[in-house]
Amino acid sequence: MKIIVGGADLSNAVMKVSKAISVRTTNEILEGIKLSVKGDNLTLIATDMEIAIEKTVMCDTYVEGDALIPGKIFTEFSKKLENEDQVEIETEENGRIKITYGSSEVEFAALPVDEFPVVKKDLRDKTFSILQKDLKEIVGRTVFCCSTNESRPILKGCLFEVTGDILTAVGIDGVRLAMAKKKIKSASGDFKVIIPARALGEITRLLEKDEEEITFVSENNSLMLEVDGTVFITRLLEGNYMNYKQLIPTEFVTTVRVGRTSLLNSLERALVVAKENNNLVKLDIKENCITVFANTESGNVNESVTVNFEGKDMSIAFNSKFLCDALKAVGDEFVNMYFINNISPLIIKPYSGEEYLYLILPMKINSQV
Amino acid sequence: MKIIVGGADLSNAVMKVSKAISVRTTNEILEGIKLSVKGDNLTLIATDMEIAIEKTVMCDTYVEGDALIPGKIFTEFSKKLENEDQVEIETEENGRIKITYGSSEVEFAALPVDEFPVVKKDLRDKTFSILQKDLKEIVGRTVFCCSTNESRPILKGCLFEVTGDILTAVGIDGVRLAMAKKKIKSASGDFKVIIPARALGEITRLLEKDEEEITFVSENNSLMLEVDGTVFITRLLEGNYMNYKQLIPTEFVTTVRVGRTSLLNSLERALVVAKENNNLVKLDIKENCITVFANTESGNVNESVTVNFEGKDMSIAFNSKFLCDALKAVGDEFVNMYFINNISPLIIKPYSGEEYLYLILPMKINSQV
Repeated sequence: MKIIVGGADLSNAVMKVSKAISVRTTNEILEGIKLSVKGDNLTLIATDMEIAIEKTVMCDTYVEGDALIPGKIFTEFSKKLENEDQVEIETEENGRIKITYGSSEVEFAALPVDEFPVVKKDLRDKTFSILQKDLKEIVGRTVFCCSTNESRPILKGCLFEVTGDILTAVGIDGVRLAMAKKKIKSASGDFKVIIPARALGEITRLLEKDEEEITFVSENNSLMLEVDGTVFITRLLEGNYMNYKQLIPTEFVTTVRVGRTSLLNSLERALVVAKENNNLVKLDIKENCITVFANTESGNVNESVTVNFEGKDMSIAFNSKFLCDALKAVGDEFVNMYFINNISPLIIKPYSGEEYLYLILPMKINSQV
Repeated sequence: MKIIVGGADLSNAVMKVSKAISVRTTNEILEGIKLSVKGDNLTLIATDMEIAIEKTVMCDTYVEGDALIPGKIFTEFSKKLENEDQVEIETEENGRIKITYGSSEVEFAALPVDEFPVVKKDLRDKTFSILQKDLKEIVGRTVFCCSTNESRPILKGCLFEVTGDILTAVGIDGVRLAMAKKKIKSASGDFKVIIPARALGEITRLLEKDEEEITFVSENNSLMLEVDGTVFITRLLEGNYMNYKQLIPTEFVTTVRVGRTSLLNSLERALVVAKENNNLVKLDIKENCITVFANTESGNVNESVTVNFEGKDMSIAFNSKFLCDALKAVGDEFVNMYFINNISPLIIKPYSGEEYLYLILPMKINSQV
């Protein structure tokens, strides 16, 4: 291959695909970025066998062909080419890749391009489309509740389920559950996949145009989407997801409506002290007031938050980080909290509607508090 | 003591003094922040015995007195009080410190305040004043060349020497030397101290008003300065600084004038490859051109930079990070580089004037390049 490409185009494309370079691998092939030239197009692709990212840019082509270049050093180097108008990339007979810019040049050792895995991307089968800003929001509200633990790999993914014109996303880590819903723009029919949390993180980083739609396409165990000429492909997690609906209680003893930021501020202050005791904070819930307690060797916190209250008084303890995570993920001024007793899950929902739901299991109340 | 103070004032003051809390110590006293209340003033001070930072804010005083509070947790906690109008701080009979805000409160265990060291700060003796922006610039141009090595502790500091109305700052780490000069606003006379590099870093972080003056006051082995009500005190390094003037050659064989950013860009690209070989890059200097070479297993770089040239051709090798550091620290469009031979130091100076000077020792040219 031999091409000339703009330094800014190259640097931008390399930066995007580099997110899929494998970092912890014994297979140097997966540390490479594959360059493929056909017609006026330079296509870059990287994959770690879980996700793949591909980006195509325009180029002036002298010779078509492919090459596989060590990804980490190429990424670092091409960042420093973004001000070059013209960058020439050429494969040499000695098996090296020569990059020329201005009156300077660099040569990198090439990797065997034929060993680079084929990434299947002509998916069809099932699709749905959603506004980018809605996707960002639904991911932001759920993905942090996905498990990071290898013991139940299926929970390292986020359930994405389309029924009618509603997308429901669910993340569960064994102690808490997040569910969020958004209206989609269109769908080929019902849709149900489990997307690795890491892939969702990388996908949202690609979203730059809030008001534009993005289309999910899935076939068998793969999912593909395209954002501004960047193609993103991820493996899906296979297996049966938890029947999450049966985890969510529907009858409650105590209901509290609370200002989200005032409770969040109190919990965060309590967390400063609670950190050294597994983040344990105790909530005393009574008429008009939640009292937040934390008590450790460093100090003790006693915060009062005014609330609307209905039902029975209650004392219950939580990992306050989990409460903070949930309260940070939503933007509402007020949220509703539903309690049963001090060993049953707490449910957090919007004041009205069903746009999100958090379930958090309580901690055993420590005699110290 | 018992006072009421604004949450934003408290949080800002704690944040400033917390930079002097000792982090690696077996003496918990030095992990504390001392609060002293006298009249309408709350004074906070922290010290690690090398530097001390003190900040005074206005408060409503009910009872004067002192307290020593664990610094790390108090810093973290007071960050979360910045939106509180009124924060009450009170020492209790049980030896704890109670902080009340809104209808909430926290208690921290107090440390024995009598054991907190006395920080001497009524210094006089020698002084000089300089514009804040000039101080920032002179520190930015020299401090990165100070040694980080314990073997010659005196080189962990930066020489500050005032003669007439010129401040000269010098940093040396054994392989390179930086010298910078600035006009000062006033001085009590000649002035010569060696300031720990770390203290200079903290001092520049306090500077927020470019056009205002800042006054250095030194007495014996201490230096004090005050920025916007924050008092900064540091120990000075004692001993004889290197006679740096005799290290700087004055006669050269080859002089090159080069565009600073184009050489910097080339060196940074070469560094991507050179990293795995101690940052070694070779410069071939000839009429009109410096060629920058790096050659390692990852690849090889060959960059050409156009220059004005006078003298003999030369091949010389450097740790390219040191060249990049120097070129990044100055803002000029062009710099002059002076060479003698490939085992003698390179000197970098401005095109005209003496505002800065860098000396960098070459590396042995590796047969590989």
